[in-house]
Amino acid sequence: MKDKFMYRAIELAMKGSGFVNPHPLSGAVIVKEDRIIGEGYYKAYNEDSAELEAVKNSSESLEGAEIYLNIEPFKNDADINKSIEAIVSSGIKKIYLGMMNPNPEKALNFSEIVKAKGIKIVNGVLQEQCEEINEIYNHYITKKLPFVFTKWAMTLDGKLASRTGDSKWISSEESLEFVHHLRQRVAAIMVGENTVRMDDPLLTTRLEGIEISNPLRVILSKYGNLPEEAKVLKVDDRTKTLIIASAKIPKEKEEFFIKKGIDIIKLEEKSGRLDFKDIVKVLGEKGIDSLYIEGGSEVLASAFEGKVVSKVYAAVAPKIIGGKDAVTPVGGAGIERMRDAIVLKKVKHEIIGADVIFKGYIE
Amino acid sequence: MKDKFMYRAIELAMKGSGFVNPHPLSGAVIVKEDRIIGEGYYKAYNEDSAELEAVKNSSESLEGAEIYLNIEPFKNDADINKSIEAIVSSGIKKIYLGMMNPNPEKALNFSEIVKAKGIKIVNGVLQEQCEEINEIYNHYITKKLPFVFTKWAMTLDGKLASRTGDSKWISSEESLEFVHHLRQRVAAIMVGENTVRMDDPLLTTRLEGIEISNPLRVILSKYGNLPEEAKVLKVDDRTKTLIIASAKIPKEKEEFFIKKGIDIIKLEEKSGRLDFKDIVKVLGEKGIDSLYIEGGSEVLASAFEGKVVSKVYAAVAPKIIGGKDAVTPVGGAGIERMRDAIVLKKVKHEIIGADVIFKGYIE
Repeated sequence: MKDKFMYRAIELAMKGSGFVNPHPLSGAVIVKEDRIIGEGYYKAYNEDSAELEAVKNSSESLEGAEIYLNIEPFKNDADINKSIEAIVSSGIKKIYLGMMNPNPEKALNFSEIVKAKGIKIVNGVLQEQCEEINEIYNHYITKKLPFVFTKWAMTLDGKLASRTGDSKWISSEESLEFVHHLRQRVAAIMVGENTVRMDDPLLTTRLEGIEISNPLRVILSKYGNLPEEAKVLKVDDRTKTLIIASAKIPKEKEEFFIKKGIDIIKLEEKSGRLDFKDIVKVLGEKGIDSLYIEGGSEVLASAFEGKVVSKVYAAVAPKIIGGKDAVTPVGGAGIERMRDAIVLKKVKHEIIGADVIFKGYIE
Repeated sequence: MKDKFMYRAIELAMKGSGFVNPHPLSGAVIVKEDRIIGEGYYKAYNEDSAELEAVKNSSESLEGAEIYLNIEPFKNDADINKSIEAIVSSGIKKIYLGMMNPNPEKALNFSEIVKAKGIKIVNGVLQEQCEEINEIYNHYITKKLPFVFTKWAMTLDGKLASRTGDSKWISSEESLEFVHHLRQRVAAIMVGENTVRMDDPLLTTRLEGIEISNPLRVILSKYGNLPEEAKVLKVDDRTKTLIIASAKIPKEKEEFFIKKGIDIIKLEEKSGRLDFKDIVKVLGEKGIDSLYIEGGSEVLASAFEGKVVSKVYAAVAPKIIGGKDAVTPVGGAGIERMRDAIVLKKVKHEIIGADVIFKGYIE
């Protein structure tokens, strides 16, 4: 039963996906005599916390009830004193936690305070699952750097696109929908200028049946050589764009982008290149807790070389297109010896029709 | 129960793998009152048939018994008259078949003859599985061309090897063992001369616990430019090599190979290349019912362009090595548009640890 209620808390927490960054996804389920009598989740940045919502929404007296929280509340997550007061005064006698809050700046310790008030705490219920849904938060709150992940779709013979650059479509429709769930989840999405030139992507989230949240579109473009009519250069309140450029970008390019309402970050080149360590640092400073790099091949190579990638998603579709010169997912110079390969950890496979999506971590 | 006994017949049939070509893998299980009382399989080319073995090995009277055969016996498969006589005189009253024999040269029809003798026949038990284990035979007996399949192991970023050519090892040990099961199964294995130069493979079957059968090693080498010390150029009674070369191969190269006991087939070049349609035709004429193309990239591209490949195996390992110039599984010119991609049919995924082996067919 404990697992069942925590799974429900996770399910609720996930509804905040894309709206709470850089705070954690949080869900709360209040249970009495094995029945759910209240539920809540953290809906958007700086709105009421999951536990407050659950107390507010409960259908009967909470005297002697238990509450399931996928993550320990913490002061930065919402108004922690209000949460503690609500729980204590409600009569809730036991709290099940999925995981402790990893925020290192502990001014107020939720668990110690409620324990001192006589409430029991059980930690670690479905801990692995709870950690996974908040892997962005857990990374960002401890490192102050965005959690970086990559995603590509390739053919069974290792190509991102045909030799002429055609990539529509490598993966199935269901695998494509997966991309939009990733976009929904993150604060920022990145492509390089070649991808803008070749594919002219919109980089917004397209999902039916839920409120969508567009990630900040980050374009890597050293000297701003982007087609003036590119879709990513049209911005409004809900779809913003940031260009990361070299400090040597021509003045008139910079002014053109600024006039369009596009932000620019200028970085010093290192050995003639933009360094991914600098890129993630500056994004972290801007409060970007997560970055999804969609491509292309050379941007991905730089990100792997810069050792900033934490998670990899890769869809493989059982199609064969051939082509000695067709582009593969990760270009660059590449390693020399197989024993120096990046070996993904904790690999999972999701089979979607004939496609397989690999998921794995880089430590 | 019927499925259970047919699965056992399939399991027995598979023991002949690598030894019965170009005949079908055949297993036989005799059942009385739901007990197995006799078993047999076709052990090697021109030895006793599965059904004869089963009758011979049965532990009691076969009066009223039933026999399970994964494939209908046929005159070319062994001594069909002996089979019919053995079954009829044994008192067996019913035959369960996995599939009819697709051999088009029907001089004697097993099923009709035994039916005329009052024995019942039920066809199509586990038909799909029975067809799959004999896909080599079914193809060869109807087309007189070898059943061609390919296998590669690639990284999750689409490479066959690092930019320096290192491919040891992309896939896990368990996936590697899979290669040896494929080698065991086929009459011939093919690589191109680049693979011989880069990897110097032995191309023999290495499996523990079973008697092994080495496939004929077929090397594609237009002008015989192979290192004289290459392992595949050392032949003996159990490990033979055939070189497929251009008609324009230098005389001294040809003599060098012949002196080493290596066979040569010379083909006319077409547009400066060896044509895969010619290659499979001449191999079929030599009684080669199956060809496993292991690589490399350009040989595979030619095979796909020549439309001779029926089945693809591809192992994908969750490793990332990068490299714009690293080799991908299928080179060549490649197609222009994704809509012209070869889309594999009847795809299955086998998960081996963190690796996934894709299997699919080309129609």
